[in-house]
Amino acid sequence: MKLYTYFRSSAAFRVRIALNLKGIAAEHVPCQLVRNQQHSDEYLAVNPQGLVPVLEDDGDVLTQSLAIIEYLDETHPHPALLPGHPGDRARVRGLAQLVACDIHPINNLRVLRYLSRTLGQEQKTIDAWCVHWIAEGFTALEALLAGDDRTGRFCHGDEPGLADICLVPQIFNAGRYAMDMTRWPTIKRIFDACMALDAFEQARPERQPDAE
Amino acid sequence: MKLYTYFRSSAAFRVRIALNLKGIAAEHVPCQLVRNQQHSDEYLAVNPQGLVPVLEDDGDVLTQSLAIIEYLDETHPHPALLPGHPGDRARVRGLAQLVACDIHPINNLRVLRYLSRTLGQEQKTIDAWCVHWIAEGFTALEALLAGDDRTGRFCHGDEPGLADICLVPQIFNAGRYAMDMTRWPTIKRIFDACMALDAFEQARPERQPDAE
Repeated sequence: MKLYTYFRSSAAFRVRIALNLKGIAAEHVPCQLVRNQQHSDEYLAVNPQGLVPVLEDDGDVLTQSLAIIEYLDETHPHPALLPGHPGDRARVRGLAQLVACDIHPINNLRVLRYLSRTLGQEQKTIDAWCVHWIAEGFTALEALLAGDDRTGRFCHGDEPGLADICLVPQIFNAGRYAMDMTRWPTIKRIFDACMALDAFEQARPERQPDAE
Repeated sequence: MKLYTYFRSSAAFRVRIALNLKGIAAEHVPCQLVRNQQHSDEYLAVNPQGLVPVLEDDGDVLTQSLAIIEYLDETHPHPALLPGHPGDRARVRGLAQLVACDIHPINNLRVLRYLSRTLGQEQKTIDAWCVHWIAEGFTALEALLAGDDRTGRFCHGDEPGLADICLVPQIFNAGRYAMDMTRWPTIKRIFDACMALDAFEQARPERQPDAE
């Protein structure tokens, strides 16, 4: 199994956590986004979208972090990253997608570059953009977590799963803007519970071989 | 079953298609986004994120269109919206997420409002923003579809599924900007195959009771 990754990519970070939780060893192939390696012909032949992560496994070339994580969960069922009941599965996927669809892509590198290079926005305006979408998303997520008794030590119950996997990298991203996480106490509590686990700790950006 | 929907919402459009493909009747509750009904206390009590769609079923309140569609697929397995093999399932989810994570949220109403109201951008700049992200996404999607012999009459094989469900509303959205779809012939061919089906045709925005 081979993972195309970049140490600062939140989406690659998610897959690293999932691999660690499953105890799966994968060869890491770094793709330096800040040096535009994702736009090289070589990389576009792997993923025409020019994004990380990509997982290669047994001839399959898989894109999109959530699709990759569900693949890992289906091919390596233990420990499960989704609960068993359809309504609970939808809850966990919904929490994960709140982050993965409605926060992260809007603040992704290519979008911030467009704001800067094409629209000529200043760094402080771009930082405010990021903070706005993170705060809006975290406020909704806090309500969904705090208002549901299925929330436990982690986003759903007392074992980490898909929602936690998406949440933690987004909190690392928020850390770049020095956001005050005490506004979202349930999120902060779950983050602390996750980071006490080796699977999350070992996946963090600074611990990757390609970290700068 | 109750669907909170808005006729122009691409995400609600997806769920309408899935319900039609499954032959499930759901009560439609319109939420007028242009009139900001999604920010009402009443609606935020349903979905703290203030977005459509929401599906209520048997006491469960489900958010996020992809999570809702997977729920429908798990609770009403026929016809299946995902293939059986994990690698194929990951492919279909990846294609769906290319649209649902990397095109649609960046062009969503709340983002366009931020560009206009907070950043003071003109309409032509905002239109160019939308066209940019749609074109970048469709070019990658075209490569992924045209370069894989698992693509059939639809995105994956000869039956419509999750990827087609995400693709079609995005093409309707592209239609607002008069984009030339002949640049992406495989996408255009699949769109035409989808729209020949009643499940897609009946879900289109203009056919909804809340259409203006």
